[in-house]
Amino acid sequence: MKAIIIGAGMGGASAGIALRNVGYQTEIYEAVTDIKPVGAAISIWPNGVKCLNFLGLGPQIKALGGDMATMAYADYRTGRILTRFPLRPLVERVGEFPYPTARAELQAMLLDEFGRERVFLNKRLTRIEDNGSQVTAWFADGSAAIGDLLIGADGTHSLARDYVLGHRVARRYAGYVNWNGLVAVDEDIAPANQWTTFVGQGKRVSLMPVAGRRFYYFFDVPLPKGLEQERGRAREDLREYFSGWCAPVQRLITQLDPLGVNRVEIHDIEPFSTFTRGRVALLGDAAHSTTPDIGQGGCAAMEDAVVLALALRTHSLGIEDALLRYQEKRVERVRSLVLKARKRCDITHGKDPQATRRWYQDLENETGENILTGLADTILGGPL
Amino acid sequence: MKAIIIGAGMGGASAGIALRNVGYQTEIYEAVTDIKPVGAAISIWPNGVKCLNFLGLGPQIKALGGDMATMAYADYRTGRILTRFPLRPLVERVGEFPYPTARAELQAMLLDEFGRERVFLNKRLTRIEDNGSQVTAWFADGSAAIGDLLIGADGTHSLARDYVLGHRVARRYAGYVNWNGLVAVDEDIAPANQWTTFVGQGKRVSLMPVAGRRFYYFFDVPLPKGLEQERGRAREDLREYFSGWCAPVQRLITQLDPLGVNRVEIHDIEPFSTFTRGRVALLGDAAHSTTPDIGQGGCAAMEDAVVLALALRTHSLGIEDALLRYQEKRVERVRSLVLKARKRCDITHGKDPQATRRWYQDLENETGENILTGLADTILGGPL
Repeated sequence: MKAIIIGAGMGGASAGIALRNVGYQTEIYEAVTDIKPVGAAISIWPNGVKCLNFLGLGPQIKALGGDMATMAYADYRTGRILTRFPLRPLVERVGEFPYPTARAELQAMLLDEFGRERVFLNKRLTRIEDNGSQVTAWFADGSAAIGDLLIGADGTHSLARDYVLGHRVARRYAGYVNWNGLVAVDEDIAPANQWTTFVGQGKRVSLMPVAGRRFYYFFDVPLPKGLEQERGRAREDLREYFSGWCAPVQRLITQLDPLGVNRVEIHDIEPFSTFTRGRVALLGDAAHSTTPDIGQGGCAAMEDAVVLALALRTHSLGIEDALLRYQEKRVERVRSLVLKARKRCDITHGKDPQATRRWYQDLENETGENILTGLADTILGGPL
Repeated sequence: MKAIIIGAGMGGASAGIALRNVGYQTEIYEAVTDIKPVGAAISIWPNGVKCLNFLGLGPQIKALGGDMATMAYADYRTGRILTRFPLRPLVERVGEFPYPTARAELQAMLLDEFGRERVFLNKRLTRIEDNGSQVTAWFADGSAAIGDLLIGADGTHSLARDYVLGHRVARRYAGYVNWNGLVAVDEDIAPANQWTTFVGQGKRVSLMPVAGRRFYYFFDVPLPKGLEQERGRAREDLREYFSGWCAPVQRLITQLDPLGVNRVEIHDIEPFSTFTRGRVALLGDAAHSTTPDIGQGGCAAMEDAVVLALALRTHSLGIEDALLRYQEKRVERVRSLVLKARKRCDITHGKDPQATRRWYQDLENETGENILTGLADTILGGPL
């Protein structure tokens, strides 16, 4: 059996490894020539780490992940700690560590494990044809690939999704812009092994440790869509948006490399329930695009890969049937993740200013219990 | 990492394969010198078949399984069909076939896959010692085996269970005796590809097709425990208990080999919630002994093996922790199977004669929908 995978991102590469591990011949076709993740880093929560363990990548992800011993929220203006607590109780509750990881390193780890010789770049999908026993993917360069099934892991702008759903779906702007990047750890900005978040004015600045004594940082600002803000001008823009914020935030803005900042208008897609058509299945952002507000987009893609491989391995009524089993096991899970992220997004970014103020107040009384319970619920809803 | 498995039955052998597949060194220690399953055959329901698929044994189990195309209940006296319906809707709903299978062949398949050279016979467990980093199993012949963990798959009379619970648990007699064996298909007894059950008087006679044009047959009779009934006298005993039953039942009694009949007093064990202690975990009948009334005892053992292997592979907080994750994922599932079987046992065997009569009446109006829904719920509650 041969699986054609469209897209070499986290979802596609994870699916490639998972399917190969259960005995499929696998090939990945990627539209771009230089695979460059959208974000500088990503937090792999324990449900995602369990998926990587399943794929045999446990030691590798441990080596790439930062040590996130504590979690803290701080007041934007004064820098005063609103709440701070250890993450160890979460680890013990769910049975695994979270690992914030640089995206490029995660990507390299996945592609190395999959085998780069079976990743074909510069292959932009143009058309899918399923004749009931084989699927053909046609590419912009005129070439084609044929397999027994096709996995559409071609991201939030997925063409495979158009094929599966029979129509294009619109992305929904979530109302904020996110700047992100990597910077060397500086304890005058935040403790080296803490996930620190400064909140106020419906904005936030957050720092997560990744391996190599670096912080993954990001800034969120509620803004209209489509502003003309040029790459390279991040420092000036951030200075303006975060004027009046405390010293650690100013220090971070000073230290970041303006050319290494990603600026992303955050979108999601209204959850839908059809992930398969015949021998074609969607996976990752192609099946469910979420805001990053609970850090579950990549984890959900890895969960998809695990469940897809298990569904194919453990059912014998044919490819189409196994893909439907995959769909059945994933639709509700990812819907709940997308909607949970959207809810957190709105509270974080001041959609209802009163709700956001209430949240700031709640943080002052937070012992960690509520936040850790929310995280644990999300994590334990995963397949492993 | 090395796992010592106590017991070479379905649970132990499945666990051996599952743990080996996720990278463990594995050895099985079995008390007897000649592994002889208690029952002649077993129905592997689709949840069990999915587990075997997971272990890589899909083609093998398909070859051993009988073709159970339809299911029927018949009146004990007249042989009149009360209800009869195809099982295909169940297969489509749950995504896999059920495979009734001769136990000896299933056992051979599992041991061949595991590797007989790593199965040590005549090793009766006498004592377990866990020093916090290694477990030692001591055997009656004075020898010992040492591993990083120990899986107690030593059946319903488990000694590992005494160790884990710290006390002996009593088995509960379920109130009936079961005679079972294999016989050549004879269409004058029942259709070759049908699961046929004759019911009446709180007794039943059932025939399931297994590979090689054989029926797995069994007779249930509510009886006191401890009757002195000798092996080899099954035909005479059954003639007496089933006097007045219809011609196909008499024909079956005539055709069976009296020396090939197993006579079993059916027991279960009140469900408990502790499956692990340190580096020792219980699995299969050692962790949950059920009556065979929903055919899930062996399937549950295979589910245990899959979940155990996944728990060990996907968690990194240590053996003890991973075993607790396994326990967490299994306790409620197997409790519900044991109690569901007990409930069916009581209705089938006339514990409350009025309820049993109501069930006989219900069967006359049964379209298959209720029975298949019950089966599907049980199956879909599994881990795959």
